[in-house]
Amino acid sequence: MASYKRSSSPFLKIAKKFNCFYINGLPKRHCKPFVVEGHQVGLVRPDIMVELLRYPEVFIVRPDSVELNPAFRDFDERTARVEQVLQECRANNTFVTLKGWRNECYNVHSVLTDPPLLRMDRSATCLFGIRNYGVTINGFVHDSNKGLCLWMQRRSPTKETWPGKWDNMVSGGLSVGYGVIETAIKEAQEEAGIPENMLKDIRPSGAVSFFFESERGLFPNTEYVFDLKLPCEFTPKNNDGEVETFDLLSINELKELIASPDFKTTSLPIVIDFLVRHGVISPETEPNYAQLLELLHVPLQTIYHRAAPSENGDKGL
Amino acid sequence: MASYKRSSSPFLKIAKKFNCFYINGLPKRHCKPFVVEGHQVGLVRPDIMVELLRYPEVFIVRPDSVELNPAFRDFDERTARVEQVLQECRANNTFVTLKGWRNECYNVHSVLTDPPLLRMDRSATCLFGIRNYGVTINGFVHDSNKGLCLWMQRRSPTKETWPGKWDNMVSGGLSVGYGVIETAIKEAQEEAGIPENMLKDIRPSGAVSFFFESERGLFPNTEYVFDLKLPCEFTPKNNDGEVETFDLLSINELKELIASPDFKTTSLPIVIDFLVRHGVISPETEPNYAQLLELLHVPLQTIYHRAAPSENGDKGL
Repeated sequence: MASYKRSSSPFLKIAKKFNCFYINGLPKRHCKPFVVEGHQVGLVRPDIMVELLRYPEVFIVRPDSVELNPAFRDFDERTARVEQVLQECRANNTFVTLKGWRNECYNVHSVLTDPPLLRMDRSATCLFGIRNYGVTINGFVHDSNKGLCLWMQRRSPTKETWPGKWDNMVSGGLSVGYGVIETAIKEAQEEAGIPENMLKDIRPSGAVSFFFESERGLFPNTEYVFDLKLPCEFTPKNNDGEVETFDLLSINELKELIASPDFKTTSLPIVIDFLVRHGVISPETEPNYAQLLELLHVPLQTIYHRAAPSENGDKGL
Repeated sequence: MASYKRSSSPFLKIAKKFNCFYINGLPKRHCKPFVVEGHQVGLVRPDIMVELLRYPEVFIVRPDSVELNPAFRDFDERTARVEQVLQECRANNTFVTLKGWRNECYNVHSVLTDPPLLRMDRSATCLFGIRNYGVTINGFVHDSNKGLCLWMQRRSPTKETWPGKWDNMVSGGLSVGYGVIETAIKEAQEEAGIPENMLKDIRPSGAVSFFFESERGLFPNTEYVFDLKLPCEFTPKNNDGEVETFDLLSINELKELIASPDFKTTSLPIVIDFLVRHGVISPETEPNYAQLLELLHVPLQTIYHRAAPSENGDKGL
């Protein structure tokens, strides 16, 4: 009887890498939902819980959840009380991720379309397994010689996260106050100097969801994906100092690069999704095709299922 | 605080319809894995279990599984012993689904790429929640007036399942001995009379997975999806008597049709996936975009996770 191990393809191996928490951590670790105002907004690992127990006036560790003190009245009070704990942890070197304090906040929502419940520094959200949303643009070209090609960037060596790694042409976190397509367009201009007229045909092409874990913490990521066909003569040009270089890769070059350790792990699902949608990865060549598709869309909504009290019988699905 | 109910879009409503078991049945019913030779190949509802208890020499109902008697030696013996039970149930009118006995079998696999463990009549697989695999071709046209259009078929009123309902242009179950693309091409010729030269640009475009339930039983479905751009002047023509008519629909006509009860429920995910990949459904217009994407790819692999004994530490993911 064949086992998955025997028939594992390079793409499935990659999908297991960016889903290391979904596959290995989630079934084994005894993580607890992080609950704010009755909504599950995160997931807390046992090793983080131990530290939070030292702040019982802020975090209430229950048998089946870690709850932010419900006595806090509003967004501002929640934000301030959590910030206070984080700054103390930072001063004490409690968590490695806080060494990379960003002075840039992410909002914490129960549902992305709802008003935020609090905000916290980007470096801290992985401690609580807060869901993270981003956008990526696949910039592709139909080259008369090399066929389908994709623009890739090499991240600046001074970037806080994944310095020097290869990455998709354009990507960015969803910023407060910006819509999804708006963020994509803003990033395309800043990160790759793409002029407005080339951006009018940008096409929303789906979303990938995956659950990664690193030494820093938990990363339940959802990435909105856009395809953008670029003219052959165009070359991306960075405007914000975050990119070392851009390179146009053929499909074969790309396959080699994503199998190497030089590619940012959490950007890989977007490349694989692109190769699937454009027919490069097909059910004929990929024995684990259906499984691969599932690992590009892991059920974060179901994992973060603790429903709002008002959602009677409609539990977050 | 907004709830999902309030922000529910028409597409999310449809996705909940074709995932009625994933959303409502799976968390609430006490279904047990159906195990053959140590592999989970299905899921059995309590009401089905009660009937299977009458055949203890064939089905062993344990606290956490329903197992096919492991004493059966091979494919042939397993197939014959299950067939015997099914024929008795059919004669006794035990299960409504067996009224539609097909005299056409599906193989039962632990993994699609592995040799089959047994086979059973198509009408019976939903009793055991056996995973079902199919192919669908989206035949689309870029019309100079109506823009992006999709060919749809109305199923023949004499079809065993979903008679007279609207459906995708071409679809079919994966037949024994045929590959995925091979099945797609065979069905395209038989069902819609598409000539070989038009099929050379058929593009594998992903797969959708969903978990539907009807009065007949459980349907964990994975559908391999193909896109095929057709010339404006071409009209599909049925060759096997299974189609009443074909119609070319604009995106607005299509949106209306899929919201109506006239569309085959289990074909809806393929339409929604097409609309997502082609940018018609976008994060700007669809407040539940990420959730919708998840419901097009529910984690059947994880739900059917009972690993083969050989897959040490690599539990079916």
